[in-house]
Amino acid sequence: MATLVSTGLVDCDIHNHPASEARLRPYLAERWRRHLERFGGRNRHGLAQGYPYPKSAPQAARVDAWPPGGGPPGSSLAFMREQLLDPLRTSFGILNCLHAGAGQLDVELGAALCNAVNDWQVAEWLEPEPRLRASIVVPFEAGDLSAAEIDRVAGHRGFVQVLMLVRTMEPIGRRRYWPIFEACERHALPLGIHFGGYSGHPVSSSGWPSYYLEDHTAMAMAFQAQLVSLVFEGVFERFPALRVVCIEGGVAWLPPLVWRMDRLFEAMRDEVPELRRRPSEYVRDHVWLTTQPVEEPDRPEQLMQVFDWIGWDRLLFATDYPHWDYDDPARAFPTPLPAGGREQVYSANARTLYGLTDS
Amino acid sequence: MATLVSTGLVDCDIHNHPASEARLRPYLAERWRRHLERFGGRNRHGLAQGYPYPKSAPQAARVDAWPPGGGPPGSSLAFMREQLLDPLRTSFGILNCLHAGAGQLDVELGAALCNAVNDWQVAEWLEPEPRLRASIVVPFEAGDLSAAEIDRVAGHRGFVQVLMLVRTMEPIGRRRYWPIFEACERHALPLGIHFGGYSGHPVSSSGWPSYYLEDHTAMAMAFQAQLVSLVFEGVFERFPALRVVCIEGGVAWLPPLVWRMDRLFEAMRDEVPELRRRPSEYVRDHVWLTTQPVEEPDRPEQLMQVFDWIGWDRLLFATDYPHWDYDDPARAFPTPLPAGGREQVYSANARTLYGLTDS
Repeated sequence: MATLVSTGLVDCDIHNHPASEARLRPYLAERWRRHLERFGGRNRHGLAQGYPYPKSAPQAARVDAWPPGGGPPGSSLAFMREQLLDPLRTSFGILNCLHAGAGQLDVELGAALCNAVNDWQVAEWLEPEPRLRASIVVPFEAGDLSAAEIDRVAGHRGFVQVLMLVRTMEPIGRRRYWPIFEACERHALPLGIHFGGYSGHPVSSSGWPSYYLEDHTAMAMAFQAQLVSLVFEGVFERFPALRVVCIEGGVAWLPPLVWRMDRLFEAMRDEVPELRRRPSEYVRDHVWLTTQPVEEPDRPEQLMQVFDWIGWDRLLFATDYPHWDYDDPARAFPTPLPAGGREQVYSANARTLYGLTDS
Repeated sequence: MATLVSTGLVDCDIHNHPASEARLRPYLAERWRRHLERFGGRNRHGLAQGYPYPKSAPQAARVDAWPPGGGPPGSSLAFMREQLLDPLRTSFGILNCLHAGAGQLDVELGAALCNAVNDWQVAEWLEPEPRLRASIVVPFEAGDLSAAEIDRVAGHRGFVQVLMLVRTMEPIGRRRYWPIFEACERHALPLGIHFGGYSGHPVSSSGWPSYYLEDHTAMAMAFQAQLVSLVFEGVFERFPALRVVCIEGGVAWLPPLVWRMDRLFEAMRDEVPELRRRPSEYVRDHVWLTTQPVEEPDRPEQLMQVFDWIGWDRLLFATDYPHWDYDDPARAFPTPLPAGGREQVYSANARTLYGLTDS
């Protein structure tokens, strides 16, 4: 690993998880502890209880990622060091905790859970481990509560991003989410949009598909639809400093998408007269993508071609540890990346985007 | 135009339309004439009454496409000859009539309307005009009724395809649609899947978007989801002679989609053990794409690269006449096609696929 990048690996998608609900209790206000004891949580729909991963990969995890001392994958910092950070010589890893409150029907409970997760991240991950950074989890269906949570914790230098899940209840460019974008700008934090979510709408525009294979593939389309929404709702015009990171949605669909948007925009731009630039220009300036799970053509040079089209400065390496489709940095791409691009993708782009400095 | 292709242009997406509801009456059984007089039609939802096109382009049409003698765009064969077939020196044009019954809540009424449209197409388009061919319209949410309609009219040599719309009520690989695929195989007819539809589900997995720009862009994702469904439901394994044409969905998204499917399939193929080949192989053998509206990168060579990846033998030129985003064959692509590819795309591929012969 040492030779892969001279400046040290940055891993832009690592999942930490509380060992149990009880481990979050100390970070919850008494009012919400009582509430959870008496009522439990009520998620928006069944899927939010546990995304329907393959049964052979509970928690969507690598089978070897269950910590020997117990608890679910991603719950032990010691084991994460041993299994991930040390062997890969990771310089920096970004934690994206998926145990958040955004799926709660009671948005105030959701906000309290996010609050607890963020405090737990500070105390049990960021303070003890200088290589780790984290995303702020927010109850993203409630823009005001999310902005308040961002304001509350953004001062901690360990937080380098705000986290949403791609399958929101409404198209992500809508006004309800603007307070989040505003808070991201206020604190100069990128907005990470991660695979998954609890929209309630089917993942395909023709309804719920039969297979996990379809659901997983369709997630790339959810990302496409959300970029379309961000662009045409004028989000990048209204929040010119907003930077968006698409996490775990694939990458190769981006060029065809902006080509289509540009063509249509040329003909129909009157519908959104506040847009002053072409869709491709907004995307080029405001959007980053993590690499895992990268598309794998039989002819690897096709993927390198697509990376050229996207721009090497917009790609961020990620392992997705401890999930089943984990990418080992040495084998993440169907062909070794060219020298300059390698340095950017594995290290430099993330350092610039997230302001990571060894100190 | 004469020099564009030596063998004569084939236009794979032309829309004809009844001049009025009354013009279909002679082709309807008395039982349904009475029904329509007393109850009218009841479509699945409001959108089916008229897809929400831009107001400045009623019927989604070119402003110059309204026939001087009255009636909506696409309703006059004489004017279609004058405005489209003659000036482009079209050798063959494929009619895809979007006035069909698939959106009717009463599927038997839907079937009767499709029946009438098909008979109207024979009498008023195919018989009088030897350059035209047509798709069979079917009430595609009812597999059995659709198969019966295909069996009824497939013997007419003017019918060269069966038509569905991409936004079906369920993912298109599901069993309810299998009788259609079976009938396509039985009569050696390709299945055309066209932009639009009445699924009832939002076009984005995060709900209904605000703008026509988004809706139009998202249609490309609807096509992606449907190919995913066809592949993983094993449709090409069950119906090995089925040929699918994606009409008006764009083209450049195809390579990234199959790359993603292949990667995931490698890891999760146990979920669909009846599949014997990789997703990309099914797509390569069974799927064609019409070009309009083609994506337009700033650097046209990128599009040519993507055509290479898809395979030039899988691309079919289409104008989409009389719709607003009509593609003129001489200006349809951001760069002239190379000689061999030009012949294939504008003419040869469609002749082979649809069995078109000058006679």
